[in-house]
Amino acid sequence: VSAEAQKRRAALEAVKHVQSNMTLGLGTGSTARYATEAVGEKLVSGEVEGVRAVATSKATAALAEHLGIPLTELGGAGVDLAIDGIDEVTDDLEAIKGLGGALAREKIVEARARTLILIGDSSKRVRRLGERAPVPVEVLPFGWEAAVSDLEALSCRAAPRCDESGAFKTSDNGNYLIDCRFDAAFDAYEVAAAISVIPGVLEHGLFLGLAKLAYIATDEGVVELTRS
Amino acid sequence: VSAEAQKRRAALEAVKHVQSNMTLGLGTGSTARYATEAVGEKLVSGEVEGVRAVATSKATAALAEHLGIPLTELGGAGVDLAIDGIDEVTDDLEAIKGLGGALAREKIVEARARTLILIGDSSKRVRRLGERAPVPVEVLPFGWEAAVSDLEALSCRAAPRCDESGAFKTSDNGNYLIDCRFDAAFDAYEVAAAISVIPGVLEHGLFLGLAKLAYIATDEGVVELTRS
Repeated sequence: VSAEAQKRRAALEAVKHVQSNMTLGLGTGSTARYATEAVGEKLVSGEVEGVRAVATSKATAALAEHLGIPLTELGGAGVDLAIDGIDEVTDDLEAIKGLGGALAREKIVEARARTLILIGDSSKRVRRLGERAPVPVEVLPFGWEAAVSDLEALSCRAAPRCDESGAFKTSDNGNYLIDCRFDAAFDAYEVAAAISVIPGVLEHGLFLGLAKLAYIATDEGVVELTRS
Repeated sequence: VSAEAQKRRAALEAVKHVQSNMTLGLGTGSTARYATEAVGEKLVSGEVEGVRAVATSKATAALAEHLGIPLTELGGAGVDLAIDGIDEVTDDLEAIKGLGGALAREKIVEARARTLILIGDSSKRVRRLGERAPVPVEVLPFGWEAAVSDLEALSCRAAPRCDESGAFKTSDNGNYLIDCRFDAAFDAYEVAAAISVIPGVLEHGLFLGLAKLAYIATDEGVVELTRS
């Protein structure tokens, strides 16, 4: 089974939780895309109705509009259910997200979801965070080099994400994305707290204690991970 | 002695610390303006030379250019000396800043200053933070209402800052400014840590443990406050 087929299977499992009149949080990236498409199909077929969605990126907003999913803004009450892909997830449902560059808006929405479901193919499951993926950090362009210095003081190698031409990539919010690679195991909660207080940091890609459920597709089927 | 005269006296005291070849951090607001003007005069008179400055706002950058102070960007090495006004300061040199709306860039620069000097007129000295001033918080427009809900959970009244027409004011970074009013005394370090981890928050106006020195002008002269 290809990674793409796995992503789609995990997404379809998650979308079973969508019910009529829910406000959804729609993630960003190739796996989340399958979930958004499945939500659109559920609305077209009439299986659910009255669903509205908050998009976590301009790309997802464009896709949702194309599929006829009514969009809304994130209000003070948050969303009922958010579904999103991950870069890495542990069996404790701690995750790294943000290779797609939408980490700030994803965290803003998904931290306010009554239920957050993470989805991914089998390559995303890790024993420890940072095994393969960097921790992305969104920082203000103003003074970004000082933020990089502070990040490297946390025992990682920190570098701005660049496009093919070598120009710095920017988020939907116009900020830089700094990828932090940890060679050794680290205390994710400690690092997350330390990153949050660095001046100029808007958000980081450590999603800790947020998800209740994950669906990871494997060749043998979809594995469900839960956290009490 | 008028408040304006006091502000100027405090600023002149701080600017005595400026030496040749320093990289300075220039603050924002009516008190910081007097310091920036005094730095310009020191350069014109030849009392110091080789000084460069990082401006904490577009307004300060424009003023510095007008005065002939060479501007530079904040690099990984930070600045030698930063001078800025405050909204409130305690005898322990804990401060609230940000009524001018430049709190994020101020903190980005001033947290990386080898020496930070705070200046103000006598009305800025308080027994506890939040006595008169709100704690300003800069948040991303995306999902701002959810951030307000999270801020109010910290036992304050949180509201976006508006201009005369009722439109939300924005920072130089294009974000909203949420003013948080605390009616009762609060643990500033605890509140600062809690605000930093709210998704969508870029920065807050609590400047804790950053300043080594403050000059507060009174009718009887300029009081020096220090922290070891």
